[in-house]
Amino acid sequence: MNTWGNNIKISIFGESHGGAIGVVIDGLPAGQVLDMEDILKQMDRRAPGKNKLSTQRKETDTPIILSGIFEGKTTGAPLCAMIKNDDTKSKDYSKLKNTMRPSHADYPARIKFKGFNDYRGGGHFSGRLTAPLVFTGAVAQQILAKKNIFVGAHIASINGTSDKEFDLIAINNDIFKSVKEKDLPIIDDNAGKLMIETIEKARLEGDSVGGIIECAAIGLPVGIGQPFFYSVESAISSLIFSVPAVKGIEFGMGFEIANMRGSEANDQYYFDENAKVQTKTNNNGGILGGLSNGMPIVFKAAFKPTPSISLRQDTVNVNSMEECSLEVNGRHDPCVVQRAVPVIESCAAIALLDLLKGEGVL
Amino acid sequence: MNTWGNNIKISIFGESHGGAIGVVIDGLPAGQVLDMEDILKQMDRRAPGKNKLSTQRKETDTPIILSGIFEGKTTGAPLCAMIKNDDTKSKDYSKLKNTMRPSHADYPARIKFKGFNDYRGGGHFSGRLTAPLVFTGAVAQQILAKKNIFVGAHIASINGTSDKEFDLIAINNDIFKSVKEKDLPIIDDNAGKLMIETIEKARLEGDSVGGIIECAAIGLPVGIGQPFFYSVESAISSLIFSVPAVKGIEFGMGFEIANMRGSEANDQYYFDENAKVQTKTNNNGGILGGLSNGMPIVFKAAFKPTPSISLRQDTVNVNSMEECSLEVNGRHDPCVVQRAVPVIESCAAIALLDLLKGEGVL
Amino acid sequence: MNTWGNNIKISIFGESHGGAIGVVIDGLPAGQVLDMEDILKQMDRRAPGKNKLSTQRKETDTPIILSGIFEGKTTGAPLCAMIKNDDTKSKDYSKLKNTMRPSHADYPARIKFKGFNDYRGGGHFSGRLTAPLVFTGAVAQQILAKKNIFVGAHIASINGTSDKEFDLIAINNDIFKSVKEKDLPIIDDNAGKLMIETIEKARLEGDSVGGIIECAAIGLPVGIGQPFFYSVESAISSLIFSVPAVKGIEFGMGFEIANMRGSEANDQYYFDENAKVQTKTNNNGGILGGLSNGMPIVFKAAFKPTPSISLRQDTVNVNSMEECSLEVNGRHDPCVVQRAVPVIESCAAIALLDLLKGEGVL
Amino acid sequence: MNTWGNNIKISIFGESHGGAIGVVIDGLPAGQVLDMEDILKQMDRRAPGKNKLSTQRKETDTPIILSGIFEGKTTGAPLCAMIKNDDTKSKDYSKLKNTMRPSHADYPARIKFKGFNDYRGGGHFSGRLTAPLVFTGAVAQQILAKKNIFVGAHIASINGTSDKEFDLIAINNDIFKSVKEKDLPIIDDNAGKLMIETIEKARLEGDSVGGIIECAAIGLPVGIGQPFFYSVESAISSLIFSVPAVKGIEFGMGFEIANMRGSEANDQYYFDENAKVQTKTNNNGGILGGLSNGMPIVFKAAFKPTPSISLRQDTVNVNSMEECSLEVNGRHDPCVVQRAVPVIESCAAIALLDLLKGEGVL
Repeated sequence: MNTWGNNIKISIFGESHGGAIGVVIDGLPAGQVLDMEDILKQMDRRAPGKNKLSTQRKETDTPIILSGIFEGKTTGAPLCAMIKNDDTKSKDYSKLKNTMRPSHADYPARIKFKGFNDYRGGGHFSGRLTAPLVFTGAVAQQILAKKNIFVGAHIASINGTSDKEFDLIAINNDIFKSVKEKDLPIIDDNAGKLMIETIEKARLEGDSVGGIIECAAIGLPVGIGQPFFYSVESAISSLIFSVPAVKGIEFGMGFEIANMRGSEANDQYYFDENAKVQTKTNNNGGILGGLSNGMPIVFKAAFKPTPSISLRQDTVNVNSMEECSLEVNGRHDPCVVQRAVPVIESCAAIALLDLLKGEGVL
Repeated sequence: MNTWGNNIKISIFGESHGGAIGVVIDGLPAGQVLDMEDILKQMDRRAPGKNKLSTQRKETDTPIILSGIFEGKTTGAPLCAMIKNDDTKSKDYSKLKNTMRPSHADYPARIKFKGFNDYRGGGHFSGRLTAPLVFTGAVAQQILAKKNIFVGAHIASINGTSDKEFDLIAINNDIFKSVKEKDLPIIDDNAGKLMIETIEKARLEGDSVGGIIECAAIGLPVGIGQPFFYSVESAISSLIFSVPAVKGIEFGMGFEIANMRGSEANDQYYFDENAKVQTKTNNNGGILGGLSNGMPIVFKAAFKPTPSISLRQDTVNVNSMEECSLEVNGRHDPCVVQRAVPVIESCAAIALLDLLKGEGVL
Repeated sequence: MNTWGNNIKISIFGESHGGAIGVVIDGLPAGQVLDMEDILKQMDRRAPGKNKLSTQRKETDTPIILSGIFEGKTTGAPLCAMIKNDDTKSKDYSKLKNTMRPSHADYPARIKFKGFNDYRGGGHFSGRLTAPLVFTGAVAQQILAKKNIFVGAHIASINGTSDKEFDLIAINNDIFKSVKEKDLPIIDDNAGKLMIETIEKARLEGDSVGGIIECAAIGLPVGIGQPFFYSVESAISSLIFSVPAVKGIEFGMGFEIANMRGSEANDQYYFDENAKVQTKTNNNGGILGGLSNGMPIVFKAAFKPTPSISLRQDTVNVNSMEECSLEVNGRHDPCVVQRAVPVIESCAAIALLDLLKGEGVL
Repeated sequence: MNTWGNNIKISIFGESHGGAIGVVIDGLPAGQVLDMEDILKQMDRRAPGKNKLSTQRKETDTPIILSGIFEGKTTGAPLCAMIKNDDTKSKDYSKLKNTMRPSHADYPARIKFKGFNDYRGGGHFSGRLTAPLVFTGAVAQQILAKKNIFVGAHIASINGTSDKEFDLIAINNDIFKSVKEKDLPIIDDNAGKLMIETIEKARLEGDSVGGIIECAAIGLPVGIGQPFFYSVESAISSLIFSVPAVKGIEFGMGFEIANMRGSEANDQYYFDENAKVQTKTNNNGGILGGLSNGMPIVFKAAFKPTPSISLRQDTVNVNSMEECSLEVNGRHDPCVVQRAVPVIESCAAIALLDLLKGEGVL
């Protein structure tokens, strides 16, 4: 279903070229002041058209709040935010009605919805649907921040070019802030330059690239999450895998931990100067038995390269039942990873907000 | 919560050293003949004590069906299966009440449940709780098989020693069957010998090893899953991350796809001899836009090494508030990956059954 | 939560004097043609300002569909319908910020939301929120009609003045149609005249009246519903009790059945001319063991009199903590029962649609 | 589904003549001491065979707790309680396989489950399934009591013979306690004598009688519940309509309020000596806008007469497709209302516990 959450329920609606996209957020605590400037800033990080790395479409990503806010504060009733679809050139897409774009949702969507799906621009499967997710995530981050819980993310790599990694133990909000201020959300600016070159090269060749995003959350109390079936990993991953193009997620040392021995992988305990329980390493990414253990939550998500490329590809026309070839022209992102960074932050923030509310913490 | 599923609801209960563990499965179609021999065989693959690779505890993993079966067939009412806890030596664990085992759930569980959790053998967080999961998965696999949907898995690697991988395009039920018959669920028997040596070496050194499991499902109709928020990946991953020790999951080419270009990663279409839409590659692991596309569903899950090792580790006593060291003696698995193979199969089968029922297919 | 449904999820948002109210409907089958004229007609039955029986406010109840419809048909993606709030005089309500209107939600809402609720016109608790419910119900009724399932309702009584009752056995769609065409949804026009006098008299005296609505559904297949905990009665009643002012619901003979003996109350079986199983009576209102039995589903819902009256009432100011008196002036309905008839129909239709989809019937 | 609850999830399993019936309760707070004697006492109120008013079967209603309790306290992990089925004479029922008992679930259950349902004694639809509900309710009542929230119920009437009613304003725990101690849960012992005569007369005539139960809860904080769609009335009614034989529910003045005028029905406010907001009347039964308003929650539930009677009834054989007649002999309750009193209390307590946990109160 298009509704998520146990304690905060979010319901995403909209199609790329329909009237509007948006979200209903049900279960927010009442009395929260929303900083709209901050929300718009976060949404702007995701918006297209900012530079030549991303598509030149100017989507109007200004959310209109229809309910749930009164005198600048949340009322406790559902908050509905709507984003109108303006800059849409629907004619561009009509020829794609029957020709299935490889690695897009076109084909299974057509079968699932018996041909009635709005195929223009991917319809409900469009990456544009992540805009209301980022709106929701920005709201969630503001509420979490009041509990001294912070979420941040950066590009870990693009097509093999890697940024520095988060320090699994010492990660802090200053790094989050610093990354958020940058055009390209990275730690190491030199890596950033190489990434830009990589993306630009792909663009010029009519191709696209993928990458990996690393995300962390700090300040979470110990014991959040459920053993079966609502572990912190389950909550986060179920949201992350709703983001178009994600093909993998790993927590802490992730797949690498499979090659470690127990003596090396185990996070041994000690008391810090405040008699607080800490681990010397954080190979488990802040989660044990599905529960937060007080260390930073850290995970990585892998994005496939944008499926829309102008290079010729083989495909099928499911109406004429003929094989054919396809060049996807028009305005496409050669890489969506940089725009996806606030989306991943949002998924993490929404998942944690839901878990925290379930514990009665909010 | 300890309850999962939208269309088939499963509710897992029990603690490692309590009266019993078990599961209630709600929403099974009526009239299904259950092959108990097959269920027991699948549960036996997970059970401990079979050889020196795993713990010598003889858990009695015989499920007693309390409801939902009448004259050998499902009634459509909830099926409850209970597994009694017999071979438990609770005294072994009493000294662990206050000493937190590194990388186990002990510490966050104690905080979450304010010290009232049953700490013996990990309580509700014990790997033993995967026994009712395997029971459920075996039931799910039988129902799926009647729709010509099959699930299988093998050890992809243990501590870096790798098996052959599934062929993402040509995978079939014969391979599944062949792997299921083996003591060690692998494709390449030579790799298996090396794995056994790796595990045995770790055991002798009082250490443990992790690994990776590869799982696939074939025969799924096109269009199963939901875009937001119940993608096939979301459904499977939310279950997989309920399995103790899993730290990562990836679909298709997974993290590797992040290093590919679009022209390389995109799965191009063609018609096969039966005019069925097929992809030439399966880098997306059978899922596009969260929906099944008719190709094999393939994913990998990363397991950390068993946290219980006899080597000395630093930890804390949260009662006396002193740092201390710990050697976990007793019967422990130096590696759980081989026993986890039917668990991962079960998670995949349960997720697919739930998705299929949501489509009205069952 | 403000989200309902297992198979069709509906999420209601909005406040009486906010930007807009609306609904997201998730899970509709794709390819359904929506008859907008019929939807508007049904919404118009609920809308205020039509005659002197109801408030003279002219709410603009025109739904704007933001998503989920493409080329006149449902796409299968969530359908969002928004209704703007135009004719609102917020100043009217400012004096009610601290003075709790008796029998309205003002007081518990203020405590629940810590004073941050939008108190104007009842905010999220306003009867106006039933407009998106009627939109949803009209959509549901159109989909049900294609399966030959029909829903209808009439005023059973207003302040003790009673209409004829539905014939529990012989109820049919002609009666539904006939009642829907009338200004006052009743079977017996003479009863209608008396009801109008009753309402008019209350209005002139600054008072209000309540009443009872009888609703039925015909054409439902046998076996819809779940024994625990999603009986047909549970599904319908959980929605009906979301409608403001409802204080009771009864199925079939309802409370009267408690005074009958088994020999009188039991619905005995026979085969009709088509060898279809029928009952001679329908005291159970079409539901046995929580499941539909093929006979008409019939229930009644009791509405309390509108709490807003111009007569002086005792109340409290929760800011000054003083007792005070209150005369609610302005535009109020002396009776909402006639406007609630399409609301009750809608709840029934939504509940049945959700149950039917769960059975894979849609 | 057979799973209920948003914050406390309960999953009921079992069939009348299967291996066992039971419940999994997920989400209980950790550290709760359970008073087993009190639980057994409450279950004993529901159990059959106590006197000639109820069936002479001696069901063994002793719950065996399989999980979730450690050292006498809840662990926070799911609590599973199982009740074995012992005193079952399955042969009694075999002849009922194809003959549909009027007003029982036999016919729709057979259609729904395609003939695979366990028809013996009603299977999963048996009133026996209320035993695990009472277990759960007893646990819930113990937890609520620690928050000074108390639930009680009595027989309001049997076949028209009425007990005194609860005082909607002044109801208190002393009355609850007094009623619980009695063999027949009533306020007025003279009414009780007449009720016994009524039941006994029906029994001797091979017939059965129904009745009404009145239930109340006191001590609830203000503001519990949700406007859409999880009102206090919705939560309670969705559970109450899972109880076999219930055909109606009303809150406060219920159906009678439909005949009152606003000036009469409205509950006017005042401050009591402790400056606490109170209402002078409680016609709304403690609920406004779906939320608790601090006054006693009061509702009534109508029970139909037991469908099993020894008088001859017309019915059908759905195997031979012949009309036939039926006399249900054997051990049957001429009235289940007295046994249902703890069931209704349990439903109220479970609903309130779920709502309270959602507010973070537990």
